[in-house]
Amino acid sequence: MSKSVKYAVFGSGSWATAIVKMLCENLDEVGWYMRSVYIKEHLLKEQHNPSYLSSVEFNTKQLKLSNDINEIAAYADVLIFVIPSAFIQDELDKITIDLKEKTVVSAVKGILPESGKLLGEHFHDIYNVPFGNIAVIAGPCHAEEVALERLSYLTISCADAAKAKDIAKNLSSDYIKTKISDDIIGTEYAVMLKNIYAIAAGIAHGLGYGDNFQSVLMSNAIREMKRFIKKMHKMKRNINNSAYLGDLLVTGYSVFSRNRMFGNMIGKGYTVKSAQMEMSMVAEGYYATKSAHQLNEKNKKKTRLPIIEAVYGILYEGKDPKITFKKLTDKLD
Amino acid sequence: MSKSVKYAVFGSGSWATAIVKMLCENLDEVGWYMRSVYIKEHLLKEQHNPSYLSSVEFNTKQLKLSNDINEIAAYADVLIFVIPSAFIQDELDKITIDLKEKTVVSAVKGILPESGKLLGEHFHDIYNVPFGNIAVIAGPCHAEEVALERLSYLTISCADAAKAKDIAKNLSSDYIKTKISDDIIGTEYAVMLKNIYAIAAGIAHGLGYGDNFQSVLMSNAIREMKRFIKKMHKMKRNINNSAYLGDLLVTGYSVFSRNRMFGNMIGKGYTVKSAQMEMSMVAEGYYATKSAHQLNEKNKKKTRLPIIEAVYGILYEGKDPKITFKKLTDKLD
Repeated sequence: MSKSVKYAVFGSGSWATAIVKMLCENLDEVGWYMRSVYIKEHLLKEQHNPSYLSSVEFNTKQLKLSNDINEIAAYADVLIFVIPSAFIQDELDKITIDLKEKTVVSAVKGILPESGKLLGEHFHDIYNVPFGNIAVIAGPCHAEEVALERLSYLTISCADAAKAKDIAKNLSSDYIKTKISDDIIGTEYAVMLKNIYAIAAGIAHGLGYGDNFQSVLMSNAIREMKRFIKKMHKMKRNINNSAYLGDLLVTGYSVFSRNRMFGNMIGKGYTVKSAQMEMSMVAEGYYATKSAHQLNEKNKKKTRLPIIEAVYGILYEGKDPKITFKKLTDKLD
Repeated sequence: MSKSVKYAVFGSGSWATAIVKMLCENLDEVGWYMRSVYIKEHLLKEQHNPSYLSSVEFNTKQLKLSNDINEIAAYADVLIFVIPSAFIQDELDKITIDLKEKTVVSAVKGILPESGKLLGEHFHDIYNVPFGNIAVIAGPCHAEEVALERLSYLTISCADAAKAKDIAKNLSSDYIKTKISDDIIGTEYAVMLKNIYAIAAGIAHGLGYGDNFQSVLMSNAIREMKRFIKKMHKMKRNINNSAYLGDLLVTGYSVFSRNRMFGNMIGKGYTVKSAQMEMSMVAEGYYATKSAHQLNEKNKKKTRLPIIEAVYGILYEGKDPKITFKKLTDKLD
């Protein structure tokens, strides 16, 4: 890909805003699709996103903003999707242009709830995007720290190393270090699974478990994640690399994680419904839990997933959090 | 070992007090040596340690207290040492009785600063204790959470599995789960190394690095720890087990860790001396850093230890924390 390759970001949340900021450090122009007319107008007038990372000032001359997803999809060569998993299917359904020649990048922190598919799989299956044109951006990275220009590391996964390098280069800056990987499936599953473990961490906290247990939970979670991903896509990977373990830790230890907050409310006695209503949004890990459970059920030889199964039982089978976690503690070590 | 095997704890800090509490859940009598006459008298009169975990009430009928280390060493079959690494050599030098037949357990979170030896090595070399009689208690476990009876997990390592099981059984309770391991050298090094990484986490925090970097640091730390331990003692081990990764996390993420606080002061601009004076104690990781560096220097083929070397440079070679960590960030991924 040459310098003239055009990038666009789809979504207007905090992670989307952070990625636009990273790209603006390197590119003359960045396409940016958002559903909200209000956010677009505010950006043009006030040079910042009114709802997320509003401390980040943009040079609007660098931004090609639109509320028309097909306009931005047609404009860009590299399409970076950063829409919460709960809303993404509706947005994707609007795309009518041919995507076969595009590079599609997932920065979605979850799985498509309707189909249970990873974003890359979805684009491959529905739009015939070849796997060599599909990439994933993985953390560990809180968008809020990007806004503060605090040093963060990203991993860009793509089967085509040259593409991964090009995307990595365009995201790199004084405060963003990047590395590339060819484990696109593994990193995308890691991004999805960490949210389940963040819910588990929240439930544990809500039930009164302390820091000692949290560290045991995370130590078991990374081993469980390794087993799960290995089953889905066997290849040599170091599960302790930042894209897997680092991302698990930054989410599992963050008190600001929506997934952890959601779990915390469940642990404190809220029902699943009331916790969702109280948060006025659905935590991505909620869908990820169901998908991970179903993916494992499909396997002939199931993988041992005690943490995911405990969370699944609580969220989808009405099991009591206290009793379920008491049983879980016997399965951890 | 039969039921009549006698246990004793050496030390009166918070971790020692927590271990005595665990043993009191199972044993009729527990020997307890402490240097301080005041603490002993206070325990007898008020049923709690005046200085550490003072919320823990003891039944003093269960305690055999003494300020004479040889009296308690002679009394017990299983000797659990829980004295801070900065003071332990002085205490050990007082021991005159024969320890060959004893089981010696290290719950020391560090290394003997004078000799650079692990406690187990020390007992083997100086007192001819066979390696089969040497055990290690590893976390992840904050003593404060034991006082609150919050669920915690311990790993007991010993070459003799039956001994490990017996010690594990006597530490287990409603709130303490145990597992055994035969990786005595690996778990003891892990306990030592985590304190260095906690100092690194503190320095990073003091310098203004955020949560994203912290997770990258921990992800690199566990890989570095794996390389280090593998060099010291090659055997099959899962570095993501609680005794290694869990213990690293509970220390590296704890804002109460003395090592992390020490690092934080260094990162904020204190000199090493003034940080030590301000804390009125020496963080164990300070000695561990020197030992780890020296152990690596002794190797013909050195292991790559970028985090340990960065901390060593700052603590022992007067290197500037800001510049050193800036260089370190290029070595992490």
